Amino acid sequence: MKQKPLAPFRFAVPPPSAVSLADPVLAPRVEANRAATIPACLEFCEKTHRLDAFDLKWKKGDKWFPHIFWDSDVAKVAEGMARELARRPDPALAAKLDSLARRIVAAQQPDGYLNTHFTLVEPEKRFSNLHDWHELYCAGHLIEAAVAHAEATGGSFFLDAARRYADLIARTFGRKPGQKRGYPGHEEIELALCRLAWATDEKKYLDLAAYFVNERGREPNYFVKKEGWQSWRLRYLQAHEPPREQREAVGHAVRWAYLCCGMADVADRTGDAGLLEACRAMWENCTQRRMLVTGGIGTSVDATEAIEGDWKLPNLTAYAESCASIGLALFSRRMHEITGEGRYVDVVERALYNGIPSGISLSGDRFFYQNPLAAGPDSIHDRERQSWFSCSCCPTNFARFWPQAAQLCWAWRPDEVRLCIPAASEFELESGMKIVVSGRYPYDGAIKIRFEGAFRTARFPGMLGVTKPSKIPPRPFALSLRIPDWCGRFSLAVNGKRLAAKPEDGFVSVRRAWKPGDEVALDLAMPVRVLRAHANVGADAGRLALQRGPLVYALESVDNGPGLHRLSIPAKQDFKLVRAKGLPRGTLAIAGEALETTRPGAALYSTAAPRTRRRRFVAIPYALWQNRGPAEMQVWTREAP
Amino acid sequence: MKQKPLAPFRFAVPPPSAVSLADPVLAPRVEANRAATIPACLEFCEKTHRLDAFDLKWKKGDKWFPHIFWDSDVAKVAEGMARELARRPDPALAAKLDSLARRIVAAQQPDGYLNTHFTLVEPEKRFSNLHDWHELYCAGHLIEAAVAHAEATGGSFFLDAARRYADLIARTFGRKPGQKRGYPGHEEIELALCRLAWATDEKKYLDLAAYFVNERGREPNYFVKKEGWQSWRLRYLQAHEPPREQREAVGHAVRWAYLCCGMADVADRTGDAGLLEACRAMWENCTQRRMLVTGGIGTSVDATEAIEGDWKLPNLTAYAESCASIGLALFSRRMHEITGEGRYVDVVERALYNGIPSGISLSGDRFFYQNPLAAGPDSIHDRERQSWFSCSCCPTNFARFWPQAAQLCWAWRPDEVRLCIPAASEFELESGMKIVVSGRYPYDGAIKIRFEGAFRTARFPGMLGVTKPSKIPPRPFALSLRIPDWCGRFSLAVNGKRLAAKPEDGFVSVRRAWKPGDEVALDLAMPVRVLRAHANVGADAGRLALQRGPLVYALESVDNGPGLHRLSIPAKQDFKLVRAKGLPRGTLAIAGEALETTRPGAALYSTAAPRTRRRRFVAIPYALWQNRGPAEMQVWTREAP
Repeated sequence: MKQKPLAPFRFAVPPPSAVSLADPVLAPRVEANRAATIPACLEFCEKTHRLDAFDLKWKKGDKWFPHIFWDSDVAKVAEGMARELARRPDPALAAKLDSLARRIVAAQQPDGYLNTHFTLVEPEKRFSNLHDWHELYCAGHLIEAAVAHAEATGGSFFLDAARRYADLIARTFGRKPGQKRGYPGHEEIELALCRLAWATDEKKYLDLAAYFVNERGREPNYFVKKEGWQSWRLRYLQAHEPPREQREAVGHAVRWAYLCCGMADVADRTGDAGLLEACRAMWENCTQRRMLVTGGIGTSVDATEAIEGDWKLPNLTAYAESCASIGLALFSRRMHEITGEGRYVDVVERALYNGIPSGISLSGDRFFYQNPLAAGPDSIHDRERQSWFSCSCCPTNFARFWPQAAQLCWAWRPDEVRLCIPAASEFELESGMKIVVSGRYPYDGAIKIRFEGAFRTARFPGMLGVTKPSKIPPRPFALSLRIPDWCGRFSLAVNGKRLAAKPEDGFVSVRRAWKPGDEVALDLAMPVRVLRAHANVGADAGRLALQRGPLVYALESVDNGPGLHRLSIPAKQDFKLVRAKGLPRGTLAIAGEALETTRPGAALYSTAAPRTRRRRFVAIPYALWQNRGPAEMQVWTREAP
Repeated sequence: MKQKPLAPFRFAVPPPSAVSLADPVLAPRVEANRAATIPACLEFCEKTHRLDAFDLKWKKGDKWFPHIFWDSDVAKVAEGMARELARRPDPALAAKLDSLARRIVAAQQPDGYLNTHFTLVEPEKRFSNLHDWHELYCAGHLIEAAVAHAEATGGSFFLDAARRYADLIARTFGRKPGQKRGYPGHEEIELALCRLAWATDEKKYLDLAAYFVNERGREPNYFVKKEGWQSWRLRYLQAHEPPREQREAVGHAVRWAYLCCGMADVADRTGDAGLLEACRAMWENCTQRRMLVTGGIGTSVDATEAIEGDWKLPNLTAYAESCASIGLALFSRRMHEITGEGRYVDVVERALYNGIPSGISLSGDRFFYQNPLAAGPDSIHDRERQSWFSCSCCPTNFARFWPQAAQLCWAWRPDEVRLCIPAASEFELESGMKIVVSGRYPYDGAIKIRFEGAFRTARFPGMLGVTKPSKIPPRPFALSLRIPDWCGRFSLAVNGKRLAAKPEDGFVSVRRAWKPGDEVALDLAMPVRVLRAHANVGADAGRLALQRGPLVYALESVDNGPGLHRLSIPAKQDFKLVRAKGLPRGTLAIAGEALETTRPGAALYSTAAPRTRRRRFVAIPYALWQNRGPAEMQVWTREAP
């Protein structure tokens, strides 16, 4: 992939209050997050003593015990609350967030340290086991929460606490005499420090992020020399070589994705082309050789939660942690912001509509930790979503992810507004103009974009995490519409007049002096697509998957009865769109003809010839499986002759 | 399955010295065991300090540490040496065995206790953690070794030591006041005590075996109440209910198989029809719902080494421990001895020619611990055999298994001799007559059985582990030939005269006054059979496996190139038998036509139509894979239309 110059390709995501959703798929998820996920996470954080830990009253012998990763769960809920509050005012939520943030900050030590486990349980072990103990990972999430809190409330007490903690970390780690030359075993703080740098305009936090990225994996290896970690396990932590030299997506998938986010942020802010090239190469490797069709990554069944080699994409045993898909989306979004290339949004979209939402029930309060592509009696992962986990990173990650959904649909720079994902939504520009997208995407490819006059003046206060724009969008400016990778045919019309436009880097652009009343019609052809995997993917050999628009479909036993493995589907047929029973109104299922093959007889193995009969099948969007009770599920079905 | 009366169906296995092999498959394995496996196991036991442990000189701080299961490895090598010695005299081996046995016995404590870990490391924890610590399992293997030693050498010092240890165990465990009401977490001692009872004619050891079998799983549960084990984990140890009430094959596969051996032994010796019925039911469940086509059991990828539910028969991730197949064969052999039903031998044969030998290289010194049915870049198990394991039960199990191979081929009672597995072999009867089987089984179904006059008088000294026969085989007596489950058509001729015989319970019998010079010709039709799995087996849906005679075949990349998943095989074709390259002379491969399907293009997922071309495939016996270097392998191949 040829590298393009950085500068002209920088895009910003809109501030949370400037965008909103009105589509049939994402908007209900965002609402369920507000109404169910955040309250449920808060409740479990309370029940499990995760909140109590911050009161620092724990004593040896107590029935509960502040675990090394607990702080991160609380921080992610706080971040989710702040992001939700930033979307729209909610005094009750604001009060809850304020009290939570104060409870967190109260646990800060005089020197700035803020970690309940190491304050309460093992104070003497502070920063002594970076490879395994999640200390800097927790710090990263605290910083992210504090930045989101400041953005949402304008208050600074949480952000100030985060700065004091970051200052302590900056004093502790680095290349100066007396400093530890360590870095986190579970990445996250790198991207958090970049956010902190942009929120505070303090370069030192960016420098610390860059230090963590650049020191990582250098020889002599810190984890091996200072902490006795085995060399062969460094790949699991992406610490086997400096990240800028890495070209493969390897190791614990969430760590890898968070590292890549931090690398992209540092590369972008420091103009580090070498680092960006590593990001590109790893993203390529991940998405072209190691990613499930749902945007799930980290498929390994033996190396926990990890990405392993090329083409290792099992279905039944795929791990595909919910957090890893979220991480991949956040990384891919950054790569679009930096490069402007639509293919990064293709992956954001794949995860956003498939591998991410599969991890959470429509009700918002039940979760999958793993997201395999098949489930049945042979399953090794949960077959029903759970309300909480002892290691509960996924639920709290949803809490902070969904409020960002509308922001993922748009990008902008002073002379261009980009509709990345054409879900029904609004984007209120600083100029006062509002761009309103309507339609039933992702179920329908007919998209209307209307320019409306606005009554309030929207402002771009400088979205944290992106460059502060120096100008408001001028007239004329370009409206760019993404043509997804799955779309083979589209048409575009402006005010009723058809335009012949050729996508460039995945977008078609129309530049003009847009005025209220202008209307753009984008029609993305959305046939049922029959996908096959690369010839090297063993698990999917002889199998097909159905995708329509951005949605990957799956057979579920609720519609088809048990024994999905007996079905095969002919690729050449007229698939029908039908109403999906028991799922939200408007959900489209795919129906068609399948063959059901059964070997008669009770013998476990026999030479009896299989019998085949024709029957109907129904497939629903993968993300929606197990919303109608326990079920078998299958994404890749055998292709019938 | 209707239960038949016990008495008329009791068969004995011949003594080791009365039988020998001359076939192309088993005989070389037995020889490799003598020449390579036993020496290699001894060497590793020495290298890893397993032998040193018996000298009781270990001290805290030493670099090595006597592990809780080490004694069992040493005992199994000793048993293997004794069984090998019992087959034929070998003064050098006898001397080595004598010295090894004396070294073991020297570690016995004054009260009879004999376990290096608990003598050296944690003497205060003796018999305190039965569910996890393998103490009684090690005792069982010591007893088995001692009995085999006595059988082979006629000497009693090792057997006496085993009796003293068994006496201590009998004093410790039981239902009397002051005794522990425990039983082993890893079964093995039950079957060993039965062997000890038969070797010593002491009923008390049979009583202790019966106690262990009958006390197991009773309420209040010993492991839960006395050792704090979790109730939900009892199934893993077959301790969730009394074995006689169990009807499913569940939990750790080796433990299950060893328990069943002990149950069958106790049932047989005590006439306990209820216990035998449980054996039958569990065997049914195991072999008709939970057994790989190779005779592998314990397929679970998440519950370590365990059998889980019905139809859970994955290929790539199948665990199928070598020891578990050995255990299943030993259990099935007992069931034939008790019931006389040929279907039990069908399973012995399936394991003997497939799932067992796959665990060991032809050279005899490399081992698989797991025996999956597919291997490739996606593998989660070893793809190359190893010379040893830290938990090295499998290599040492081979050492004691192979010397029994010839005994597995035959069974007898005073009025009948049974050829269970028609490998080329000899059975020298007590009468002085010798039955000589010739042919190239399992590669050829043409089998000649010749009665010859013998020059020495063979004796049946009362094979340990079987009833002592009271009579020598009289004239006339029946010669019974097994007609395997895989054989649809056979012919039988005696002295050139064709006989129309109908198999009963899997055997055809010819009763007459056999005399030297008589010749029987058995012809088992041996076409290539195309197998499909039961319609409930998800992993094998749309797939076929090839079997010829008792041999299950597999594709290996050595013959077919990499990417075996791209191949599919039409079931209806004329398969050819060809010489297998790089494998022992006489090994027959199956060749035929396959389709190779490749989806063109570099994209991970695309709508590009797959391309198919016709090509040749070659399949070799599954047991022989990875004897020609690292390779991909596949037993179940997609069935082409």
